[in-house]
Amino acid sequence: MKRKLRMGMIGGGSDAFIGAIHRAAALMDNRIELVCGCFSIDPEISRSSGRACFVPDDRIYASWQEMIAGEYALPESIRMDFVSIVTPNMVHFEPAMAALDAGFDVVIEKPMTWSLDEAVKLKAQVEKSGRTLALTHTYTGYPAVKEARRRIAQGMLGKVRKIYVEYPQGWLSSRVEDDPASNAGWRLDPKRSGKAGTMGDIGTHALNLAEYVSGLRCTEICADIRACVPGRMLDDDGAALLRFGEEVGGVLIASQIAAGEENALKIRIYGEKGGMEWLQEEPNTLIMKWCDRPAERLRVGNGYMSDIAKANSRTPGGHPEGYIEAFANIYRNFALTVSARREGIAPQSEWLDFPTVDDGLRGMQFIETIVASGYEQEKKWIKWVE
Amino acid sequence: MKRKLRMGMIGGGSDAFIGAIHRAAALMDNRIELVCGCFSIDPEISRSSGRACFVPDDRIYASWQEMIAGEYALPESIRMDFVSIVTPNMVHFEPAMAALDAGFDVVIEKPMTWSLDEAVKLKAQVEKSGRTLALTHTYTGYPAVKEARRRIAQGMLGKVRKIYVEYPQGWLSSRVEDDPASNAGWRLDPKRSGKAGTMGDIGTHALNLAEYVSGLRCTEICADIRACVPGRMLDDDGAALLRFGEEVGGVLIASQIAAGEENALKIRIYGEKGGMEWLQEEPNTLIMKWCDRPAERLRVGNGYMSDIAKANSRTPGGHPEGYIEAFANIYRNFALTVSARREGIAPQSEWLDFPTVDDGLRGMQFIETIVASGYEQEKKWIKWVE
Amino acid sequence: MKRKLRMGMIGGGSDAFIGAIHRAAALMDNRIELVCGCFSIDPEISRSSGRACFVPDDRIYASWQEMIAGEYALPESIRMDFVSIVTPNMVHFEPAMAALDAGFDVVIEKPMTWSLDEAVKLKAQVEKSGRTLALTHTYTGYPAVKEARRRIAQGMLGKVRKIYVEYPQGWLSSRVEDDPASNAGWRLDPKRSGKAGTMGDIGTHALNLAEYVSGLRCTEICADIRACVPGRMLDDDGAALLRFGEEVGGVLIASQIAAGEENALKIRIYGEKGGMEWLQEEPNTLIMKWCDRPAERLRVGNGYMSDIAKANSRTPGGHPEGYIEAFANIYRNFALTVSARREGIAPQSEWLDFPTVDDGLRGMQFIETIVASGYEQEKKWIKWVE
Amino acid sequence: MKRKLRMGMIGGGSDAFIGAIHRAAALMDNRIELVCGCFSIDPEISRSSGRACFVPDDRIYASWQEMIAGEYALPESIRMDFVSIVTPNMVHFEPAMAALDAGFDVVIEKPMTWSLDEAVKLKAQVEKSGRTLALTHTYTGYPAVKEARRRIAQGMLGKVRKIYVEYPQGWLSSRVEDDPASNAGWRLDPKRSGKAGTMGDIGTHALNLAEYVSGLRCTEICADIRACVPGRMLDDDGAALLRFGEEVGGVLIASQIAAGEENALKIRIYGEKGGMEWLQEEPNTLIMKWCDRPAERLRVGNGYMSDIAKANSRTPGGHPEGYIEAFANIYRNFALTVSARREGIAPQSEWLDFPTVDDGLRGMQFIETIVASGYEQEKKWIKWVE
Repeated sequence: MKRKLRMGMIGGGSDAFIGAIHRAAALMDNRIELVCGCFSIDPEISRSSGRACFVPDDRIYASWQEMIAGEYALPESIRMDFVSIVTPNMVHFEPAMAALDAGFDVVIEKPMTWSLDEAVKLKAQVEKSGRTLALTHTYTGYPAVKEARRRIAQGMLGKVRKIYVEYPQGWLSSRVEDDPASNAGWRLDPKRSGKAGTMGDIGTHALNLAEYVSGLRCTEICADIRACVPGRMLDDDGAALLRFGEEVGGVLIASQIAAGEENALKIRIYGEKGGMEWLQEEPNTLIMKWCDRPAERLRVGNGYMSDIAKANSRTPGGHPEGYIEAFANIYRNFALTVSARREGIAPQSEWLDFPTVDDGLRGMQFIETIVASGYEQEKKWIKWVE
Repeated sequence: MKRKLRMGMIGGGSDAFIGAIHRAAALMDNRIELVCGCFSIDPEISRSSGRACFVPDDRIYASWQEMIAGEYALPESIRMDFVSIVTPNMVHFEPAMAALDAGFDVVIEKPMTWSLDEAVKLKAQVEKSGRTLALTHTYTGYPAVKEARRRIAQGMLGKVRKIYVEYPQGWLSSRVEDDPASNAGWRLDPKRSGKAGTMGDIGTHALNLAEYVSGLRCTEICADIRACVPGRMLDDDGAALLRFGEEVGGVLIASQIAAGEENALKIRIYGEKGGMEWLQEEPNTLIMKWCDRPAERLRVGNGYMSDIAKANSRTPGGHPEGYIEAFANIYRNFALTVSARREGIAPQSEWLDFPTVDDGLRGMQFIETIVASGYEQEKKWIKWVE
Repeated sequence: MKRKLRMGMIGGGSDAFIGAIHRAAALMDNRIELVCGCFSIDPEISRSSGRACFVPDDRIYASWQEMIAGEYALPESIRMDFVSIVTPNMVHFEPAMAALDAGFDVVIEKPMTWSLDEAVKLKAQVEKSGRTLALTHTYTGYPAVKEARRRIAQGMLGKVRKIYVEYPQGWLSSRVEDDPASNAGWRLDPKRSGKAGTMGDIGTHALNLAEYVSGLRCTEICADIRACVPGRMLDDDGAALLRFGEEVGGVLIASQIAAGEENALKIRIYGEKGGMEWLQEEPNTLIMKWCDRPAERLRVGNGYMSDIAKANSRTPGGHPEGYIEAFANIYRNFALTVSARREGIAPQSEWLDFPTVDDGLRGMQFIETIVASGYEQEKKWIKWVE
Repeated sequence: MKRKLRMGMIGGGSDAFIGAIHRAAALMDNRIELVCGCFSIDPEISRSSGRACFVPDDRIYASWQEMIAGEYALPESIRMDFVSIVTPNMVHFEPAMAALDAGFDVVIEKPMTWSLDEAVKLKAQVEKSGRTLALTHTYTGYPAVKEARRRIAQGMLGKVRKIYVEYPQGWLSSRVEDDPASNAGWRLDPKRSGKAGTMGDIGTHALNLAEYVSGLRCTEICADIRACVPGRMLDDDGAALLRFGEEVGGVLIASQIAAGEENALKIRIYGEKGGMEWLQEEPNTLIMKWCDRPAERLRVGNGYMSDIAKANSRTPGGHPEGYIEAFANIYRNFALTVSARREGIAPQSEWLDFPTVDDGLRGMQFIETIVASGYEQEKKWIKWVE
């Protein structure tokens, strides 16, 4: 394909922080251009946001339905190739289904849908359509995370024994949702967010990270979750004991009332021979710890990193890449994969390394399972809800 | 008392690492002298160890029974004042009971006894004897930990909401107990160690730290523990969800198969207004995190620290104190308290800040509770075993 | 201006790491588009690089002279607005002069020119042309650096007393220049690099950072520089004592033979009341240290940061921004400033916060001064060469 | 020698922080007992300090002259073996000379004497007496520092190229010497301190550390030193370019007006193959950095450390040792060496690893050299003053 991929956006207007992140991530590698959007449920905001993004007026839409229909009606040489859906959870499923139905590829925020049932249907739709869906589980886009996954797959730690994943944030320590300008409101509202609050918002990231790096699948959960701040209808804090099959245990922590924490997602995995540690707030460093020799501090951008890490970084060692670059890796790998399909060539294996509808489905199963366990008082272990 | 306190030791010979730590901790503040000991169950090792410590031959004993009888028979102006018991768990209770019976004060390693039943009896004996028992939960001896407790008690974090305590070690990742020179053997043997392995050895430290700093008491536990390395009869790994009453949740991690970890005890506590974090491997730093302003890095030895931290540190800021100094704080506060009692004066409140028989009993209750929960498959929450 | 700014590139082809960084930085904020370029001195590489960037063939040029002439000949509605010059040092001056002469604005890599004489002339040309020149001293683009400058300007540290700036890299520890694929070759060649090696390449960054953050100007230098690795004609290592007027001292370290270091630019400034510290490899953190209270750890993206930091960051706290975002801040502020000028409106003061031709001139004076001092054996202090 | 070594103290009363440190360091390894002292120039403070240390009244002296005479007059079976001199600099030389003359061994604080001339004489006296003098350059007592020295000696970094040593403190940022209770007064008074302030107090530590770890000797200095805070007669801040022979360069920073710093002594050494880094405030970690593989984080107390580190540490990995233990290593190695000499046996090589009169002389030469260079305005390099 001798041209950039054309992106449309649903959501992500000037009233939403995440829209600008998606645009920066999509644009920075010079493979994608923004051509259209319905940037807000409020047509005025959609209009002003689109103009601020230099989208021509005739490609700024007042509703996502209009946008999909409108773009579909355009000549192929002009119309968008894919849509990015960055709206609250209850507005994921329908536009994604419609976009796929119209032949567009899809990038979508996590959690993938409002309910598990929607996720099952969306997966079927992706398969039926032959289109590609990328889920923005940003954190597995970091090169150091890919390095970690690779090294575990190569057996460097020996058999995995224990997984600790934690995701403490503090921004919901007080009732920020009472401020209408906050984007906490919909996240704590079951009608817009779904069954879970914190567990959907960041617990899914934690679980995805644990499974991605370890290559294992969670099979049972014993959780304690709660709305800690009075008046909330959804969880803002929780923790769980995990099992990954018979022999591997784990602990998952996700909290948004960990006052003073920013975005301290962290994973540690221990095997027979050693352990590894990665902290999102220092994302270019991967620590490998050994029983019988000094710990090593791997740094992204150096020659000793594996090919998968190199394919997902842009700078030499010591020139930090961050959250937007991790995000950009998802967009770039998605774009490379989609472009390859459109050109009829086989994608390189490293291009396929982005979260898909399967990860999205698994995230919704996680929400279902942890909510079931988290409020349960009697029964200890809840099997993973398929 | 115009003299140093006289210490006898049970255990702690040249075949045990912890003996030298106890001696360094006891001696460094120049308030205690070592006068006698039964340093090993092996009389030859006891003899050579005693001589290496410059103990005269007539004060080196072949058994703890001989030592207590022998010292008791000496004139008061010569005989030991207190005994330090640093033997494996199954040799804690009897010598402690006998020492108290003979009027000696006692310092004892954790866990306090082999069984909960013994702990109950020992507490009764302490109370009956009017003597003082100090338990060497070293980590609450650190000045930064005392600072943390003080600041939480003063309400700086607001109401506490969440407690994370973790204690990963890696030294039992392989079967080190097969090496007879290892001191892992007795720790993994129920006959010598008691009901728990890792949970007794380091889980008790973690729980003690959580309760000491927060000022709260654990009331329910939901745990998953196991012997991860094949062939072990006691747990070497585990984690638990905790409740401290109705409104405060927690997570406790203790593992000795976290390959590559050294001694990474860490506590984080979050309240309404902020959080705090302390890591044993960087013990002179206490991090205070805030919702609305930058995190602060408190450092031991500075003028802004509270009196309790100052009373338990020896050097100016930036001159690190460590594990032995934390240990020494227990000995010094114990010595000051015992000396005060003997002189008939009231101890200053900060001298009383060391772990006692109550902490020891609570540790044994913790072992009882977490073992009950840890292997339980059906019932989720186990109430604290009194 | 209701459109994006149109960028052309000189240099930055697929044989140069820095080109992709410039493009990502320019594109990510969706205010600039890449329309043309002469990407390499090798027309084939220029062609393939341009195509890989989706530049149409008729806007890919074989020489920078052709490009400036060609673009100038295009209608204003199409032609580039500014040119980014990312070539080796000896190809900075001429294209910049020509571009300004043709009315284009200019972004240029540091050091600004090959010689001080060129820099003086270029400054005159900028002033004469009324155009804008931005110099990519990336590191002052970081929001935490801007916060540091602001806080010092506000007097938070009191009167500044001491400045330590250091920039250790290790990549020239061996003769990497013997590999033709390395981009070390031209940097160590006086004909292409100028009078200095390391001092031009990274020493200028260090000096720029020190002056930017402190608000002070270096007035005297006493340096020791050398080519440490045998056979080099330019310095690969050095250090200097600095004076900033009569009362403020400093130390500058710049080395590319600090084996094992990546890109560890660091600045510390001490005043009467406290100190501050910033490390490029952890760029979102600014440490403020105080004589009488705990050190504070300021983190980019939080509400307590000042407006200038907020205006130069994109993500909430804990979502790391990195090197490319710092770079992007220069492009964005340059673009906002240029667009404002073209629209005839006054730029906001924070848009003007990017390095200009004055910084470029000052960098060339630094090279002149430190080279003069660095090989001097007798005379201690060399006055800043104006 | 089947007994502990008997220590007497000159200085170190309750009005001096460092006395308690010396006692803790001497006592903790159970090889030394405190038997006598003249703890202060004020006989009342000497008396009360001695009693607080449980020294009997007849061994508490009113002057150091009385003490040396008094102890000398006692039977050999009772009298002290060595004296620790922990007084201000101007009271080092005379008591040390007298003690050696009377056949006592000596431990002495740094800088060794008030003047270089005294140091030369003291060295002659040590040699003549056949006695042992240990200088308490505490920082080379750390096991990680000994590991660093060993690894460089083994050639792990290849040929050394560059040494950075820095020692920033902030406690003299304001006029603390105006408080009579401060121990800053004598340090800033040339009559009591000697030619240098900060350079004598901590600059000597920095130089000693650089030479100890690298195994190299400084040959030339180009320094800038000054009294930054008005009214001071001695330097409180400075920095220097160093040469270690023809081919190795260095930078030394020492400041006591680095506001907000505690005791941040740090050394970095770079060779052909890699670099190393050690920071006193995290003393149990040694970082090894490599050109072509990940940096390693060596931690004291682990099996992979070399014998010299193991011989100077007491705890397993992760149980931090600190400043007092580093200090204790000097006392213990001194005690082992002295005891061996007295028993007529050859000391083991690792016992001899403590700073001696040669280090003390070198420190005084450093002061002489850096003061000569530091105020010099014209001449760049000053040769090391022998």
